[in-house]
Amino acid sequence: KINPVTINAVIHESCEWGNTPDGGMNRLTANDDDKKVRDWFIAKTKEYGCTYKIDAIGNIFAIRPGQDNSLPPIAIGSHLDTQPTGGKYDGILGVVCGIEVLKVLHENNITTYAPIAVIDWTNEEGARFPPCMLGSGVWAEHFTAEYGHTRVDLAGISLGDELKRIGYIGPEAASFRTNPILAHFEVHIEQGPILDKAEMPAGVVRGVQSMKWYNLKVSGREAHTGSTPMDRRSDALLGAAKMIVEANRIATTGDLAARGARATIAVINSSPQSINTIAGDVQMNLDVRSPFDEDVAEIERQCRENFAKICEEHGLQIVFETIWTSPAVNFNEVMKQCVRSSALELGCSMELTSGAGHDSVYTSKHVPTAMIFVRCRDGVSHNPTEYTRPEDCAAGAQVLLGAYLRYDNY
Amino acid sequence: KINPVTINAVIHESCEWGNTPDGGMNRLTANDDDKKVRDWFIAKTKEYGCTYKIDAIGNIFAIRPGQDNSLPPIAIGSHLDTQPTGGKYDGILGVVCGIEVLKVLHENNITTYAPIAVIDWTNEEGARFPPCMLGSGVWAEHFTAEYGHTRVDLAGISLGDELKRIGYIGPEAASFRTNPILAHFEVHIEQGPILDKAEMPAGVVRGVQSMKWYNLKVSGREAHTGSTPMDRRSDALLGAAKMIVEANRIATTGDLAARGARATIAVINSSPQSINTIAGDVQMNLDVRSPFDEDVAEIERQCRENFAKICEEHGLQIVFETIWTSPAVNFNEVMKQCVRSSALELGCSMELTSGAGHDSVYTSKHVPTAMIFVRCRDGVSHNPTEYTRPEDCAAGAQVLLGAYLRYDNY
Ligand SMILES: NC(=O)NCCC(=O)O
Ligand SMILES: NC(=O)NCCC(=O)O
Repeated sequence: KINPVTINAVIHESCEWGNTPDGGMNRLTANDDDKKVRDWFIAKTKEYGCTYKIDAIGNIFAIRPGQDNSLPPIAIGSHLDTQPTGGKYDGILGVVCGIEVLKVLHENNITTYAPIAVIDWTNEEGARFPPCMLGSGVWAEHFTAEYGHTRVDLAGISLGDELKRIGYIGPEAASFRTNPILAHFEVHIEQGPILDKAEMPAGVVRGVQSMKWYNLKVSGREAHTGSTPMDRRSDALLGAAKMIVEANRIATTGDLAARGARATIAVINSSPQSINTIAGDVQMNLDVRSPFDEDVAEIERQCRENFAKICEEHGLQIVFETIWTSPAVNFNEVMKQCVRSSALELGCSMELTSGAGHDSVYTSKHVPTAMIFVRCRDGVSHNPTEYTRPEDCAAGAQVLLGAYLRYDNY
Repeated sequence: KINPVTINAVIHESCEWGNTPDGGMNRLTANDDDKKVRDWFIAKTKEYGCTYKIDAIGNIFAIRPGQDNSLPPIAIGSHLDTQPTGGKYDGILGVVCGIEVLKVLHENNITTYAPIAVIDWTNEEGARFPPCMLGSGVWAEHFTAEYGHTRVDLAGISLGDELKRIGYIGPEAASFRTNPILAHFEVHIEQGPILDKAEMPAGVVRGVQSMKWYNLKVSGREAHTGSTPMDRRSDALLGAAKMIVEANRIATTGDLAARGARATIAVINSSPQSINTIAGDVQMNLDVRSPFDEDVAEIERQCRENFAKICEEHGLQIVFETIWTSPAVNFNEVMKQCVRSSALELGCSMELTSGAGHDSVYTSKHVPTAMIFVRCRDGVSHNPTEYTRPEDCAAGAQVLLGAYLRYDNY
């Protein structure tokens, strides 16, 4: 049985590096704090009898032997990187739940049938190096390692160089073929309000909604704000502002809205950033989601059409390019059944679809995968005030332990 | 008589430092290129018999003696700093016209009645260190030198430190009281389309429109873009976008628009700049102008009211603060008459109001001031493609020379 006090202590232990005065976390991929928490993860899992593998994109596999070590391990994975203004649970809880399962097995002298792996996937957030879920994506061969290494942050520094610097480019090829797992479980905070509203500590995840990221470049003409008449402007920032409003309108209108569409612009860079020079160039990123692939496509279609109209009206040019696509995912039925049975033992009968992407999206492409959601206060995430009660963390780990043992048995 | 070939050559000579591959200029206040062009300005004016004074905010006064050196000089001033994506004429033309007048006097052995000063005012653009017209503003005691020195750029570096670094904090107090001038002339490109449309090379400037700058801080709540329902968001960037659109609507509607109102947002900074975290904080600057002080006040009133409504609708907070105010200015009648008579000799009968602020705004608070506008292609300014023909540059300098001699005589 998982102990709420212990799991809470381990979460806080793991947040020693990269925590912020406001109670949140800022541990961007491959920075010094990420190195330290990786070292901690290896030391911690060694205590429970693990050896480890590090692959070419920095994913860490802590492996505890089973009865039949000719089998690949059944894995529990999530991530230890955070948003720049993130919380202490997103990703971290999933890795810590894996550690707690190891601990229970170890302290009770249980040897699983297959080996067990706990995985820290690299750069799940994609906050410093877009796109997100990059480590699991390379392992799943959705991206090449070369692509992963050449992602750059805003300062132009590459993920490859940073991983090398912190000593976390490993000798193992980053591939499900040469470094396979049998299955993948992941515990994660819901990051939405459904469990909190329903007053359920944990829930079964059906799958993950469809997501697409875009890069937008709007260009107009730099001109003097004081002497350029309003009707002789090509104001890139005014056009960009209309696009932000329009993307929001599309996702909050009619059937698309009723089926749960979401569209957000959160990254914007305007140039030349001078109070009295009309913006000539604006770069933005658009994040579109829906439970339905067709709805994501429809939002994209409407955005393309209406953004083009805005450009025509204001004499602007636009480049509208897709940078990441992740179609809707349904998790494996057998795995979900293991989670369901285990969750029911705690009275958790709720099933829900994930609004956020997770490493499980990529593992699900090649191995049976399932997820467990844990309630978080007010559904708030990607925010320093993100919070999950110790009992709920323990409930998530408990559902995981039950589901894990069921699948190992199966 | 001013020679078009010579004046054009001097403009290009002065653009040796800070020019960009696209034909424009990027010479931000107190950077290395600004130091070099200041050194050049001193060397150049020395050739025409000038001594110089540098004041505490880096303004440079090159002074050629007159017949009565107990009098303060009659000045010709403008600026050598540029926008980050600026052109080769904004400000530069005004200083070069001053140099050309010195040259004509020197080569023809003319000693003016009062001494003549050519001034390079510091940080007119305010692009690196807002607000603009800072050097002339300190001299006019509209700002204190302390205020000027403590303005910082986006990297947090102060103007005072940068001026010290390039050796341009002078021993002279920056004050119209202790370092007076008798009058101030300024030639400047129009930066608008009126002269170009009217096919006039130069025009008489009546005055300068009313201007106000604001700093806006919009705050909402960071949250996950994927898992946060659209109706549970406080999206600071969505609110900011609606404000950009609204400011534009206000300035382009009804009587305000008919009387020539302008409102622009060109600087925007969103935080935390992560594709999958809804923006929690946005900073912007609003630039409002109109020929009428009352209209600027009315635009501000409507913006405050409607931005507050946007905040209410989206659960946002706003801080809306004025950072710079420059009421409408009418130039001195005698000085304008000197410009008018001189301009008529070239067939230039047009009179217009400046849409942009100039150092002459601050000199006009204490000494008789007038300006001459020179046509620029398509009215484009604050843009690398800014262009004025050599003949038009010469026409501006010629009108200046005539006006200068008339006033010196008066
Ligand atoms: N869980 C999480 O925050 N993942 C980041 C990927 C996403 O944007 O959904
Ligand atoms: N002339 C010029 O560009 N001055 C900058 C001050 C303003 O914004 O009007």
